[in-house]
Parts: sequence; C-alpha cells; structure tokens
Amino acid sequence: VIRQAAASFEDHMAAAQIIPVILSGGSGTRLWPLSRPEKPKQLHALTGTSTMLQMTAARVTDPQLFAPPIVVASGRHVAEIEAQLEEIGSRPALSILEPVGRNTAAAIALAALEAPASALLLVMPSDHVIGLPDRFLAAVRAAMPAAREGHLLTFGIAPERPETGYGYIKRGAALAEGVFAVDRFVEKPDALTAARYLAEGGFDWNGGIFLFEAGTLLAGLEAHAPDILEQVRRSLGAAMREPARVMPDPDSFGAVRSQSIDHALMEVHDRVAVVPVQMGWSDVGSWDALHEIGTKDDAGNFASGDALAIDTRSCLLHTDGPLLVTVGVHDLIVVASGDAVLVMPRGDSQRVKEAVERLAATRASAPGTL
Amino acid sequence: VIRQAAASFEDHMAAAQIIPVILSGGSGTRLWPLSRPEKPKQLHALTGTSTMLQMTAARVTDPQLFAPPIVVASGRHVAEIEAQLEEIGSRPALSILEPVGRNTAAAIALAALEAPASALLLVMPSDHVIGLPDRFLAAVRAAMPAAREGHLLTFGIAPERPETGYGYIKRGAALAEGVFAVDRFVEKPDALTAARYLAEGGFDWNGGIFLFEAGTLLAGLEAHAPDILEQVRRSLGAAMREPARVMPDPDSFGAVRSQSIDHALMEVHDRVAVVPVQMGWSDVGSWDALHEIGTKDDAGNFASGDALAIDTRSCLLHTDGPLLVTVGVHDLIVVASGDAVLVMPRGDSQRVKEAVERLAATRASAPGTL
Repeated sequence: VIRQAAASFEDHMAAAQIIPVILSGGSGTRLWPLSRPEKPKQLHALTGTSTMLQMTAARVTDPQLFAPPIVVASGRHVAEIEAQLEEIGSRPALSILEPVGRNTAAAIALAALEAPASALLLVMPSDHVIGLPDRFLAAVRAAMPAAREGHLLTFGIAPERPETGYGYIKRGAALAEGVFAVDRFVEKPDALTAARYLAEGGFDWNGGIFLFEAGTLLAGLEAHAPDILEQVRRSLGAAMREPARVMPDPDSFGAVRSQSIDHALMEVHDRVAVVPVQMGWSDVGSWDALHEIGTKDDAGNFASGDALAIDTRSCLLHTDGPLLVTVGVHDLIVVASGDAVLVMPRGDSQRVKEAVERLAATRASAPGTL
Repeated sequence: VIRQAAASFEDHMAAAQIIPVILSGGSGTRLWPLSRPEKPKQLHALTGTSTMLQMTAARVTDPQLFAPPIVVASGRHVAEIEAQLEEIGSRPALSILEPVGRNTAAAIALAALEAPASALLLVMPSDHVIGLPDRFLAAVRAAMPAAREGHLLTFGIAPERPETGYGYIKRGAALAEGVFAVDRFVEKPDALTAARYLAEGGFDWNGGIFLFEAGTLLAGLEAHAPDILEQVRRSLGAAMREPARVMPDPDSFGAVRSQSIDHALMEVHDRVAVVPVQMGWSDVGSWDALHEIGTKDDAGNFASGDALAIDTRSCLLHTDGPLLVTVGVHDLIVVASGDAVLVMPRGDSQRVKEAVERLAATRASAPGTL
C-alpha cells in the first residue's frame, strides 16, 4: 500500500532531487486573537500580502532542486491550505491529513513512509519567516552531500539574543564546508545559560528545519522510536486515499505516541549534522517578534490593515476588520481580529497566554473565541 | 395653526404644571467612535443599561409635576427616539422633527410655539447625566415661583475644577431661597480666569437646563431675536403634521439664523435668574468625563460590554461588539464601537477630534465612519 503512493513521485524525482515536506500542524495561540485553532498563524499574511504557508512553499519551487511538496496538515485546514497553494501555483504532490495532532515525529514519519526511500526530504514548519531565502537554499545545497551519506541534517540559526524559548545546538567537528557534526542538543536553557552560550560561541538555535533521506529517517525511527513508526505505519495501512490525498486511519493515528522529532530521534541519533545559516529567520513566536521583523514606518510602527496612527510611536497595529485608530500612544500592541480586540504593552507579548488561558477557562463553550 | 396643536396639551396641564422639553439635536463627535451622526451620544447607554435620553425622560415622569414631554430632535432619529421612550413607558405629547439643526434658540422656539403660552417649560439636553435627580427636582420646584413671575431660570452647576469648556454664571442678589438674579454670563474663560472664578466663589457652570413660561420665552425672543422667532413661526405655519408629530417646513426652517439660546436671549434678557444645584451633573463631554463618572472596579477600570481586563488599571474599556482584552496596561481609553476601534491615553481624550478631523478629511465618502 505504501509503495503504491511512493511510486507516484518517481516521475518528479527524475528531474528534482528534494521533496519539500511542509508541516502545517500547529495551532499556536501566541498570536491570539489572530491565530486560532480554526485558522492558525501559518494561514495568515503577517508580514506582507502572502501567508506564511505561501511564503514557505514559494521558497522551494526551483524545479531543478525541488519536486512538488508533501503537506502534512490538520484535516480541518486542508481545503484552505490547498486553496492558498493553488493561489501561488503550487500543487502538492500529496496532502496528508492528520485526524489529530501527534507532534513532529509522527508527522515526519507519515511523509517519510509516503515518499520513496531514496528521496531527500526537506522538512519545514509552515510558520517561519526566512528573510534571505537565497542563503537558505545555499545551506540546503551545502547539506545535501551529508544527507546523501546518511546524516540527519538540521539548520542552525545564529543566535541574536540569549533566547530561552528555543533549543540550542553545539557544533562539533567540521564534516565539510559549512557542515558540522552535532556535539550535542541542549533543551531550552535558562537565561544565564543562554547568555553563556552566546558568549562562548559555537551554539546555534535549533530552528526545526531538517534535511535527510526518507530511508535514513525511517531506519533511525526503527532504531530509536519503533513504536511510533509501527503505529504510524498501521494508520497508513488503514488510510483513506484520494488522488493526492491520504487520510490516516483516525483510531490508529490517535494511538501514536506524541513526541517531537528532536526528542525521538535527533538528540539520540549518532549521525546528526548541523549547517549554520544566517538567513533572517524568525518563528514569529509572538506579537513582539512580528513587530521586530515587520517593516516599520518612520515612527517605528508596524501596521497592517485599516489603521490610522496619530502621534503614535513604536506600536504594532493589526486589524483585519475595523478601522483601528490610535492617538498619542507608544509601545503598544493593538490587534483587532475576528471577534476580539487585544491591547497590551510591547515587550510583554508572551502575556497573551494569560488572556487565552482565562478565556479557555471561562468560555469553554464560546465558539470562535479560541 | 399653532394654537391648534397647543390645545392638545390642555388636558395634561390640568394636572401637571411643567412640560419637559427634551432637546436631542446634538450629534457630537467627542465620544467617537461610539457617538456618530446616525446614532449620537444621547441614544447610547453610556453609564448603565438605559440610554442618556431614557434617563433624561425618566427624571421628569412624576405626574404631579410633569406633563408628557415635547421632544425636539433631528428628523433622522425620531423613530429610534420614540422607540427608546416607549421602552420606558414614556410617550411624548409631541415630537418636533427638525429637518436640519439650527442651534438651541430655534429648537426652544419650536417647543415654545407649540406649547400653551402659560405652560412652564423645563428645557433639558438629552445627553447630560444627573447623578442626584432628587436634588434636580428640588431645584426645579425652587425655581417655579420665579419662572411664574416672568424670569428665565437657569440651573447653575457648582464648579468642581477650573474647566475652560463651559460658560460661567456669576450670581447676583438673592431673589428667594436658593434663587439668585444673574449678575452676568461669562463666555468660556481661559484657564487663569477659570481658576480665579473658583477661588473667588459665586460662579456656577451654565449647564444649559432652563425653566420658563413659554410666553416669557416668546416675548423675550420677540424683543431680542425677532428674526429667529419669525422664521421659526413661518416654518411651523408650513409644517407637516401627524398625530403627536410636527415636521417644520425644511426650506423655512433651514433659513433660521443659527444661534444658541444663551447668546440670543439669556445673556441679554433683564430678568434672568439662576438656581445653583449640586446634583452630580456631567455633560459626559469626553471619554475622560465618562471614566470619571462611571462606576469603576477596584483597579479603577470602567468597563462596559464584553471586556476582559487582566492586570489593567485605571482604564476606560467600552465595546459594543468584539471581546475586548487588555493585559498589563493602565490609563488607557479603549473603545470598540461599530466599525472602529480607538486607543488613546486617559487624560487626553479631547484629542479624539484629531482623529475625527483626519477621517473626515480623508474618508469623506466612507459611510458609517463618521
């Protein structure tokens, strides 16, 4: 059954060498009220006119390098995802519709089982910004030989600040020009440790973008997380299939152990390599992060939608509906989206979770709010 | 023609002594985006569950003292006004539908010409708050004898601060218990002058609430503003009439000179008296004023509508639609109303006019925005 689907990639693989795997499983609330379970961050245009999903797909369209992508997404978003990709002329080779989210080990296993074992898979979250895509592509090219030699490749982001929200990767010995063995992975450090890493050097942020052969990945899971691989395989064996769509069996897939690919494999595999790259990366993990990467006016405001900022400095203003007017304020985040308006100080936007938690606790039955 | 309508009041007048005249002509933008030309301030519930119009009408329902009111309003609001009054069981004896606004001298002349000449008229703006209505009624009772003797009575608000936005009234000799001749009216003073008035004492704010006999008012206008009276009379002569509704002729009424009753009559009449009263009065002339009079929570927030204030202090939060969430902010005004959201610092809310002017200049064709 599995090889059946994989066979359909063979034509593309003749010309292209890499199958992009776009992961669109997240439904983060850190950009509430814009990002909601029914339309998460990656399906919105945050930094311009294209959605983050569209920008992700648009980075990997060079037919000399890439085959059409595999998209692994929540089943509820698949129509929107395919419509957005259609808008930019991208047609996934395969959409894998997860009945529930089971973290990245399971999502990547789905794609690897559907792809030819010899295919190089470039796994990318759909909600990251890469400001310098040429550097990203150069890093991908640099990573290919090591991936062909059986390494699991990750891309290391040069840290810009002692961030405690990401994992870190310590570089080991050089394997090739720009490619290093991974000395070790480090869980999200405390502030002091993060500052020490920055001072010490040789550490990169783990951005969650990977390159490997499908076969390498599957052999790795077989060795280190066989239960996950077996259960994912079972869910595909009982899958519903349409042209260019696979729906894993909900019961089997729901029983998959939920674990990140980092924990399940990257941190324990013996052939992991890192390609450090400065590519203007951001995971846009907060409204503050969006203000930081957004194109600001002379007064330091990043505004999107119908906003009128009078005597307003250093604010993030986002509206997808009402006219948003500010007068005489500074360093605020003001977001009007859907049925909600959020106002909070800039620099403190992780506190959005307090609002989301309070709303979840008190309005469990209010559809659309969360 | 005029006495025709007046005759219908005679039954009520047997029992009641005063006809309330409710002026609902304003369409202020100082409470934008809530207050708009199509639904101005007085038609909204700002401080509780009743609208300001409803609270105004509810103050004058004692049948021992009051007849049903005359309402002078913009023609475009009459359906909403009558519906709101119906809700509280108030049925105007007469609605006078102004085809255009021509300021208070014309509006009051309309009412005075439709009322019996011997009737006492209590003229009230529809958009003022009176926190202590019993004191208001006591002041009205105190004013009645002087009004019956041919005085124009105004009610003086004890000044709480050196406000430069109101006119002031200097008390003269006492005419009776709590009733004083007016020494002089003072135009809106500068800050220094206003402070001097407060220190000196004997000055009250001119709140724009009046009591007089219809005949006294008409004789006064005949003497001091005969052109206004004549033109208003003409507009009523050619009026369209329905049961309990009068629509002055638009051409004639449009030609009335636009002047306030203060300028046209009160400041130049020789028998003007003032009844000072401390009655928790506010004209709710700004979002700051609303925050001041509103019932605040322990953190000093005045919230109305679906608002969630987390770690929020001393804010005004008003929403008539979206859920409004604030986290970690203080001293802000946040208003979500209709198709707009406004954010500004508390204490500075007169700056709303900058927004309104900018929008008027740039979006003349955008219906609903202004």
